[in-house]
Amino acid sequence: MSSKDIVVAEHGSFTAKDYHDPPPAPLIDLQELKKWSFYRALIAEFIATLLFLYITVLTVIGYKSQIDPALGGDQCGGVGFLGIAWAFGGMIFVLVYCTAGISGGHINPAVTFGLFLARKVSLSRAVSYMVAQCLGGICGVRLVKAFQRSYYVNYGGGANELQDGYSTGTGLGAEIIGTFVLVYTVFSATDPKRKARDSHVPVLAPLPIGFAVFVVHLATIPITGTGINPARSLGAAVIFNNKKAWDDHWIFWVGPFSGAAIAAFYHQFILRAGAVKALGSFRSSSGHV
Amino acid sequence: MSSKDIVVAEHGSFTAKDYHDPPPAPLIDLQELKKWSFYRALIAEFIATLLFLYITVLTVIGYKSQIDPALGGDQCGGVGFLGIAWAFGGMIFVLVYCTAGISGGHINPAVTFGLFLARKVSLSRAVSYMVAQCLGGICGVRLVKAFQRSYYVNYGGGANELQDGYSTGTGLGAEIIGTFVLVYTVFSATDPKRKARDSHVPVLAPLPIGFAVFVVHLATIPITGTGINPARSLGAAVIFNNKKAWDDHWIFWVGPFSGAAIAAFYHQFILRAGAVKALGSFRSSSGHV
Amino acid sequence: MSSKDIVVAEHGSFTAKDYHDPPPAPLIDLQELKKWSFYRALIAEFIATLLFLYITVLTVIGYKSQIDPALGGDQCGGVGFLGIAWAFGGMIFVLVYCTAGISGGHINPAVTFGLFLARKVSLSRAVSYMVAQCLGGICGVRLVKAFQRSYYVNYGGGANELQDGYSTGTGLGAEIIGTFVLVYTVFSATDPKRKARDSHVPVLAPLPIGFAVFVVHLATIPITGTGINPARSLGAAVIFNNKKAWDDHWIFWVGPFSGAAIAAFYHQFILRAGAVKALGSFRSSSGHV
Amino acid sequence: MSSKDIVVAEHGSFTAKDYHDPPPAPLIDLQELKKWSFYRALIAEFIATLLFLYITVLTVIGYKSQIDPALGGDQCGGVGFLGIAWAFGGMIFVLVYCTAGISGGHINPAVTFGLFLARKVSLSRAVSYMVAQCLGGICGVRLVKAFQRSYYVNYGGGANELQDGYSTGTGLGAEIIGTFVLVYTVFSATDPKRKARDSHVPVLAPLPIGFAVFVVHLATIPITGTGINPARSLGAAVIFNNKKAWDDHWIFWVGPFSGAAIAAFYHQFILRAGAVKALGSFRSSSGHV
Repeated sequence: MSSKDIVVAEHGSFTAKDYHDPPPAPLIDLQELKKWSFYRALIAEFIATLLFLYITVLTVIGYKSQIDPALGGDQCGGVGFLGIAWAFGGMIFVLVYCTAGISGGHINPAVTFGLFLARKVSLSRAVSYMVAQCLGGICGVRLVKAFQRSYYVNYGGGANELQDGYSTGTGLGAEIIGTFVLVYTVFSATDPKRKARDSHVPVLAPLPIGFAVFVVHLATIPITGTGINPARSLGAAVIFNNKKAWDDHWIFWVGPFSGAAIAAFYHQFILRAGAVKALGSFRSSSGHV
Repeated sequence: MSSKDIVVAEHGSFTAKDYHDPPPAPLIDLQELKKWSFYRALIAEFIATLLFLYITVLTVIGYKSQIDPALGGDQCGGVGFLGIAWAFGGMIFVLVYCTAGISGGHINPAVTFGLFLARKVSLSRAVSYMVAQCLGGICGVRLVKAFQRSYYVNYGGGANELQDGYSTGTGLGAEIIGTFVLVYTVFSATDPKRKARDSHVPVLAPLPIGFAVFVVHLATIPITGTGINPARSLGAAVIFNNKKAWDDHWIFWVGPFSGAAIAAFYHQFILRAGAVKALGSFRSSSGHV
Repeated sequence: MSSKDIVVAEHGSFTAKDYHDPPPAPLIDLQELKKWSFYRALIAEFIATLLFLYITVLTVIGYKSQIDPALGGDQCGGVGFLGIAWAFGGMIFVLVYCTAGISGGHINPAVTFGLFLARKVSLSRAVSYMVAQCLGGICGVRLVKAFQRSYYVNYGGGANELQDGYSTGTGLGAEIIGTFVLVYTVFSATDPKRKARDSHVPVLAPLPIGFAVFVVHLATIPITGTGINPARSLGAAVIFNNKKAWDDHWIFWVGPFSGAAIAAFYHQFILRAGAVKALGSFRSSSGHV
Repeated sequence: MSSKDIVVAEHGSFTAKDYHDPPPAPLIDLQELKKWSFYRALIAEFIATLLFLYITVLTVIGYKSQIDPALGGDQCGGVGFLGIAWAFGGMIFVLVYCTAGISGGHINPAVTFGLFLARKVSLSRAVSYMVAQCLGGICGVRLVKAFQRSYYVNYGGGANELQDGYSTGTGLGAEIIGTFVLVYTVFSATDPKRKARDSHVPVLAPLPIGFAVFVVHLATIPITGTGINPARSLGAAVIFNNKKAWDDHWIFWVGPFSGAAIAAFYHQFILRAGAVKALGSFRSSSGHV
């Protein structure tokens, strides 16, 4: 970046050449269905969601076995809810980092849904990703059940359920706002305007996304066990296959999809609408640069 | 950056073209009141402070419900004070990351006050931000109360109060120094001189700001519950509406604003004064470059 | 990077000049055996693995002494399993950061094995690294035994063993998948294609590698104590020298090497195969640029 | 950075223009004593060490008051040793980040000593820094004592002492190796060769330094309380003023200084000696580029 560019950037007048929004993704992109990179992305989403569920649900079950007095465990013996929150947030950091260049690093149908609403991915890609994520989630939890056969059922299978004393509305609200925090962070991290600006002060995008998942778990584990990811909730529900988990299951689809939709709306119409308008005026005034 | 620039930078002689301080912000900037980007920034501050209080106070209340023996909880059952400190620090990291490009990422009236004293933002912008932050804080805690109706009042509402055994002076001192640590980090992270230097060794500015909030919580939760953010303290006080919380409330405005003022003084008159002076001499000696 | 480059990158058409895969490393590289930098790398691997085992096993032993009721400790007195997981993950972050420029920062025979399979390092270098890492691991644990003489044997010497209630297959599976997560992250972080892409959005490669180690420990400490590093398991087994530890020891070589092989296969044949193919088409179409 | 540079870098042949080691600092640099930036650096070291001790010792004392049964605390009520380790590591991350551009971000006489041995700073600067750090440490602990009057003495004043059951040799060894880990990380992070290489893959230098402090605390809190910073140990000893603390005090100077000296030797003569030699051969062979 030349010195002139820096001066321009400091005056706040990003000109058209600094970045441009890609055109909206088409609903059905037949072209991408012919590319190997599309199927590679599906594999990457499948494997990443599998690993995500494997590590996190294994942490949940292992923690409960460590503190079980019947097994000689003690109450303080495990990694705690804090360790569980770190497992979820840390894995998302690692997996978004690993898959960002291959599939965009969604690993979550709610993130895919939000990016689809903002027309960042095509409908065909969005649906394919969600199927891959859900299959990955189911296989990941299945693996935990195979590894922890004796403890898996006793310790609740890592399934998301409304905890005692909380109403359906509270659980739904917690999922909506929690997913909003996550998808808002995803939009902030992948904004092309940001990339242009931050070539000057660079960023490590997957880290704040992982931290968003971490803090939402700290806050809402006592309410719903924290879903904010329908593939995570579906994987656990299918393998645990418990009535209560299935009864509450709709909350973990409606909540995250609503939260993602609100985040997409907030980013596209509130935060970026102005950006586009402002850009328009800059463009006209900087036409001679 | 060309090789020549690197050599120049290593000799320590930053020339005028490397960076320049923006001129001091005017007290009243009528121009900015006409821009959509100004109102967008207010919305971003409101939403960010709302999410900050929602996640953090929910973590506090949820933790207390998990360890309550009356609910069958055990002492080690929750995320602990360490988890609470992570919730505050982690959310600030995520939210500063998300809003830095929209509003500057203050999310705290004390930060806004410090940046106003250093003439980084106009008076009109500073006052508008503070109003948006305080409204956001109130709405965030209101949401927690709606979600945790039965527990909210029992568990202290997340309000900042002087803990037993600590004097007013101690509480005030803890708030002053804690806010100093935070605002000093904010100044260090947003220094234009740093940006020029660090284009060579880049930075992730929101991360140290989040860690500053985290470590201050580790140190001062036992004393005041840790405010260092008047919007956080006000939001909790308004919704909890308890005499003790209101009696102590002035500490959580006077302390943070004093700490921010000292940090602004330290950065502008001690650390940067020399920088400006040194820059003057470099400028004259490098006039021919 | 010029403005033109940015535009090119945003259109997704990385041209041949953006990066190129280095040629496969030869099996035996006699040339490198004559260089001081090769022996310096061995020293760096030895010292790093020594420090890794010293810090982590010392944390394990110290934690167990803090919670031992016979010593007046209490159950909540130590850093917990969460602290142990942080010790492993944090040290890998620090040591990969420190040795990346000297030896590539393996500090783990499974990582070396994976990179050898992908032909990133020669056979001679791979074998030499593994010997250095194993010697470093042994010396690191020996140091802990010298420091914690009275507690070392009582508290299990930090050795990896199959925990009660888990079958051999479960332990082996846990090691395979855990090492897969680690080596997959290493491949993602060191991909030359990523480096080219991320000159635009930069990365801090050692941090996700450290987090991968951290989260795998959260998940599998209850099953095997978490190996995923044969030098770590060998060092503890040699110094602890316990029958049970030696009986299970093969798991901590077969598991990590299998996991690393699967990760190398996944990265080279699934994720990168497409990349190479796609690159081929870009190359032909961009020949005139 | 032009495309040609990238290709050159990938072939591993860093040419002279990529970086050059600054000349060794003189023992006495009268020139720097006349500059405001020198005294500004002393102020920054003083304030940073003060804040470091204030936050960390306050965390230690606050933790002990939270778990004191006499105060109605419970064993699991505080941030734990894990929280204490985070306070030390997190503050070092934040403070190195804040002061790196002003003073180099030492905040530790052992770091200053190591950099002096490597001739990175002059003797006059090294001695002045150490005095500023020690005064800062004393003032920081004094502040904690003023804030926590009633608890400070009961809870050991945050002083470093050899814990029961550990020999002098063990304590000294723990301090030597712990400081080696820290100063080795500092050398790795500030290596000019690294800076040149990493303009391509950038780094966030203060973060691994903070993590190094964090993991060393996890490992050696049970042995010595973890010093690895003579200003930290001196500040606590002066204010606590207890015979046992003074008797052990020499360990916390001899240990860290020895560890820093070994790290300086390791970096300068093992890791960098080869680098210089290799550079020599590259220089001659790339003279025509």
